[in-house]
Amino acid sequence: MDAKAIAPLRARLQEIADLDAVDSVLTWDQSVCMPPGGGEARGRQLATVARLRHERWHDPRLARDLEAAEGAQGADGDPMTAALLRVVRRDLERALRVPPDWVARFAAHGATAYDAWVEARATGRVERVQQLLEKTLEYSHAYAGFFPGYDHPADALIDEADEGATVANLRPLFARLRSVLVPWVAEWTSEPDPLPRGPYPREAQLAAGLELAQAIGYDLQRGRQDESPHPFAVRFGHGDVRITTRIVPEDLTEGLFSTLHEAGHAMYEQGVDPAFEGTPLAEGASAGVHESQARLWENQVGRSSAFWAFALPRLQRHFPALAGVTVGQAYRAVNRVVPSLIRTEADEVTYNLHVILRFDLELDLLDGRLSVAELPEAWAERYAADLGVRPRGHADGWLQDVHWFGGLVGGSFQGYTLGNVMSAQILAAARRALGDLDGCFMAGDFGPLRAWLTENVYRHGRAKPVEQLVRDATGGSLSVEPYLAYLHGKYEALANAPVGGI
Amino acid sequence: MDAKAIAPLRARLQEIADLDAVDSVLTWDQSVCMPPGGGEARGRQLATVARLRHERWHDPRLARDLEAAEGAQGADGDPMTAALLRVVRRDLERALRVPPDWVARFAAHGATAYDAWVEARATGRVERVQQLLEKTLEYSHAYAGFFPGYDHPADALIDEADEGATVANLRPLFARLRSVLVPWVAEWTSEPDPLPRGPYPREAQLAAGLELAQAIGYDLQRGRQDESPHPFAVRFGHGDVRITTRIVPEDLTEGLFSTLHEAGHAMYEQGVDPAFEGTPLAEGASAGVHESQARLWENQVGRSSAFWAFALPRLQRHFPALAGVTVGQAYRAVNRVVPSLIRTEADEVTYNLHVILRFDLELDLLDGRLSVAELPEAWAERYAADLGVRPRGHADGWLQDVHWFGGLVGGSFQGYTLGNVMSAQILAAARRALGDLDGCFMAGDFGPLRAWLTENVYRHGRAKPVEQLVRDATGGSLSVEPYLAYLHGKYEALANAPVGGI
Repeated sequence: MDAKAIAPLRARLQEIADLDAVDSVLTWDQSVCMPPGGGEARGRQLATVARLRHERWHDPRLARDLEAAEGAQGADGDPMTAALLRVVRRDLERALRVPPDWVARFAAHGATAYDAWVEARATGRVERVQQLLEKTLEYSHAYAGFFPGYDHPADALIDEADEGATVANLRPLFARLRSVLVPWVAEWTSEPDPLPRGPYPREAQLAAGLELAQAIGYDLQRGRQDESPHPFAVRFGHGDVRITTRIVPEDLTEGLFSTLHEAGHAMYEQGVDPAFEGTPLAEGASAGVHESQARLWENQVGRSSAFWAFALPRLQRHFPALAGVTVGQAYRAVNRVVPSLIRTEADEVTYNLHVILRFDLELDLLDGRLSVAELPEAWAERYAADLGVRPRGHADGWLQDVHWFGGLVGGSFQGYTLGNVMSAQILAAARRALGDLDGCFMAGDFGPLRAWLTENVYRHGRAKPVEQLVRDATGGSLSVEPYLAYLHGKYEALANAPVGGI
Repeated sequence: MDAKAIAPLRARLQEIADLDAVDSVLTWDQSVCMPPGGGEARGRQLATVARLRHERWHDPRLARDLEAAEGAQGADGDPMTAALLRVVRRDLERALRVPPDWVARFAAHGATAYDAWVEARATGRVERVQQLLEKTLEYSHAYAGFFPGYDHPADALIDEADEGATVANLRPLFARLRSVLVPWVAEWTSEPDPLPRGPYPREAQLAAGLELAQAIGYDLQRGRQDESPHPFAVRFGHGDVRITTRIVPEDLTEGLFSTLHEAGHAMYEQGVDPAFEGTPLAEGASAGVHESQARLWENQVGRSSAFWAFALPRLQRHFPALAGVTVGQAYRAVNRVVPSLIRTEADEVTYNLHVILRFDLELDLLDGRLSVAELPEAWAERYAADLGVRPRGHADGWLQDVHWFGGLVGGSFQGYTLGNVMSAQILAAARRALGDLDGCFMAGDFGPLRAWLTENVYRHGRAKPVEQLVRDATGGSLSVEPYLAYLHGKYEALANAPVGGI
C-alpha cells in the first residue's frame, strides 16, 4: 500500500496520540509534583484535553480517512499497516458505540462515587457508597447494552482490557487455578524470618531500586523514577517512559518490588517498535500482557534465588541493616506465604485468590445473584473460605480496591491473574530457548532475557492479537499449567527444605 | 451586563487558558524533569497544543462571541467585564494580523537560528548564525509590516510586551538613565570581600532559599520549587504557580537571589484576583510590571541591609561557612559594583547599562544603521564606552543572550529596565503609605508590603493598562527619578562608609 494513502489517517492518529501523552503528563504531574492548590485547575485542564481527544475520535473525517486507507490496502499490504488498520477499526467502532453524553454523565457519577469511597473508608459509614455502587451497576449494564454481541454483561469490558477474553473462557481457567491454590495455600503457609527491620532510608531505597531497575534493563536515558502514593508506569512517548515508587522507610521490600514491577511495565513500553510511535500500536497488547511483563521481572526474576545471589551484595552496600543476611535467608524472607486481607500486599501463592474472588463477585453482582447489600458478607465469607482470614471492617474488606468506585463494575481484575499466568508461560518459553538463565541472573546478566522479550513480546506493541502473541512467543495457547508448575516447583522446595538449606 | 451574554466568550477563553496551562506544564516538565530521550515527542506535543490554541484564536466564533459581548456591554458595565473585553479585543486583533503560515515559517526559522546560536557559542564560528540573524531581521521587518500603525519597526513588538511603550517614549528615558549611570559606575566600582567561599551544599541552598521565599510570602500550598538550568516562574492556574532555581555549589548568592527573583514573579501571579481565572486578565500587566515585582523582592528588599539583618542568622543556621560574617559584611558583599561582560551576573548599578545597549543596538539593526557584520565590534565598543570592559570573544559578547536567536529582534529587552525603574517607584510609594518598612524587614515581617502590593499591583492582573496601574499605585506616571534616588542613596553611602561601618 502506498504510504500516501495512509498519511491522512496517521496525522489524525498522531494528534490523538499527542493528546493522550498530554493527558499522561498532566496526570503524572498531578500524582508526583502538583501542590495541593493545583487540583481545581488540573481537573479542568484534564477535562479539556479529554474533550478534545474525544472530538477527534468522533470526527467523521477520521472514519472517512480510515475507510480510504482500508480501501487502498490490498491483500499484499505490509503487516504493520494491516495491524494498524485492524486496531484503529476496533478502537473506532468501540468509541462510536458509547454516546458522548453518557460518557460525561458517567464521568460525573464516577467522581462522586470515588469521593464517597474515600469518605466511607475513613468513616466506616457505607450507606452512601452502597447506593452509588448500585447506580454504578446500572451504568455497567447500560454500557453492556451498547455492545449487544456479547454473552455476558462483563464481556464488553473484559474484551476491551484483554482482547479475546470472555467470562466463558476465563471461568474454567480461574476455577482450575482456585481449586489448586486453595489447598496449596494451606499447605505452604510459612512465616520465616523477614528481612531485618531497617532503617532503610528513603534516598538509599530510591538509589538501590533504580540501580537494580537499570541492571535488569530499564533505560534512564528514556525514563526516570519518582515517588508517588500509588506506584505506576506511564509513557509520554518512545523516549520517555517513567516509573514511580512508594517508599516505606521500615520495609525494604515494598519499594524494591514495586520498582521492579513498574520497571517491567516500562521496559515493555521502551521496547515497542519505534515505527509504531504516534499510533495505537505503540501501546501494550492488553492489560494481561502488560501485567505479565511487570510480574515477570517482579516475581519470576525478582523473587528467584538466582536474582538474590546477584542483588543481595548490591543491596548490602546501600543498607548496613542487611549485613550478615545470607542469600538463602533473603530468598526465604521475600517468599513468605501468608494469607492476608489486602491484595496488593499478597505473596505469589495467595495473590490470585484475591483476584479470582473479586472476579467472581463482580460477575455475581452483574448477574443479580448478589446484591450490593449482601456484598460485604459475601466478600468476608469468600476470604474465610479461600484464605482462612476475615476482614475486620469495610476498609480491609470489600472497600479495599478502588476499581468499582469511580470505574464500572467488570473487566478490571482478570488482567492481574492473566498476567501472572502468562508471566510463567512466557518465562518458561524463554528458558527453553536460552538455556541457563539462572546463571545469567546470578552474574547480573539480564541482557539475553531482555533481548528475547524484546523480540517476542515488547517490539510488537499492540500489533498482534493477544492469542497470537502468546502462541508465537510460547508455541502454545494460553495455559495455567506452566504457572502451576512454577509455583509447585518453587514452594514445594521452600516448604520442604530445612531453614538455611537453600 | 448580563452574565449570560458573556458566558459563550468566557467558555472559549477558558479553553484557551487551559491549553496555555497545558503548554506550560509540558514546558516546565521539559526543563525540570524530562529525560534526554523525551525531547522529540515533547516537541511534537507542544506543536499540537500550539496548533489547537492557535485554531481557537482564529475560530470566527470567538470573534462573533466577543462582538456579541461587546454589544451587550452598556456604559454602566462592571469594570472587570470592561477590562476583559478590552484585553480580549486587543489580543484578538493582534492574533488575526499575523498569518498562520507566517507563524509556522518563522517558528521553523527560529528553531534553526537557535541551534546555530548554540553551535556558534560552542565553536566560535559565527558565519552561519550571522546569516540567520540577517534573515531574522527580515522576519522582524515583515512582522512590523503586519502592524502598520506604529512609527518604528520595533514598536509593535515593544507594545506587545509592554503595552503603551514605544521607541519614542523609551529613548529619552533610557538616555537619561544612561547619562547618569555611566559616571556612577566609574565612581562606585568597588570590590569588597565577597561572602566566604562555601561549601554551600545543594540541598541546604534549596532549603534556605525556600525558607526565605516563604518568609516573604511565596505560598507553597500553591507552588513548589525545583532546579533548572535557567530559573523561571510559571503559572498553571491560580493555585499552582511554580519557581525554579539554579544552584551553584560554591556560590550562595546565585541561587539565593534567583529564588527571591522568581518568588517575586510567582507571588504576583498568586496574588491575582481569582475571579480572573480562565481569562487573559489572570496574567501580569506587562513584561516590565512583571519584572518590577521580581526585582523589587530580589533587589529593593533582598539586597537591603534590613533584609540581611533578618536573613543572615537564618542563613547561618544552614551554612557553617557563614559563621562570623556580620550583617554589614554580608550587605557589602551582596552589593559589590563591578563592571562585567555578562548581563545576568550584573549588579544593580551596572545592570541597566547592559540592557540599554542591547535596546539601542537592536534599534540600530532594525533602522539599518548597523549591519549584522558590524554588530560584534559595535557591541564591544559600547561595552568599552559604557562599562570599561571588552568581550574576549563572541560568547561573552553579542552572542551571550538568546533573545535574538530564536525570537524576533525588537521588544525583548526594554522590560528589564522598565522593571527596575518601576520597582523603585512602586516601593517608594509603598514606603510613603506604610512608614517604617525597614523595621518590618528586620523583624521578618513582610506581610504589610505584600498586602500593599496585592492591593495595588498583584490583584489587578492585566485588568489595568500599565500607565493607569503605575499612576494608581504611585500617584504619578512612570519616572526614572525614584530609581536614581534609590541607587544614589544606597551606593553613595556604601562608597563613603568605612569598611565595617554599615
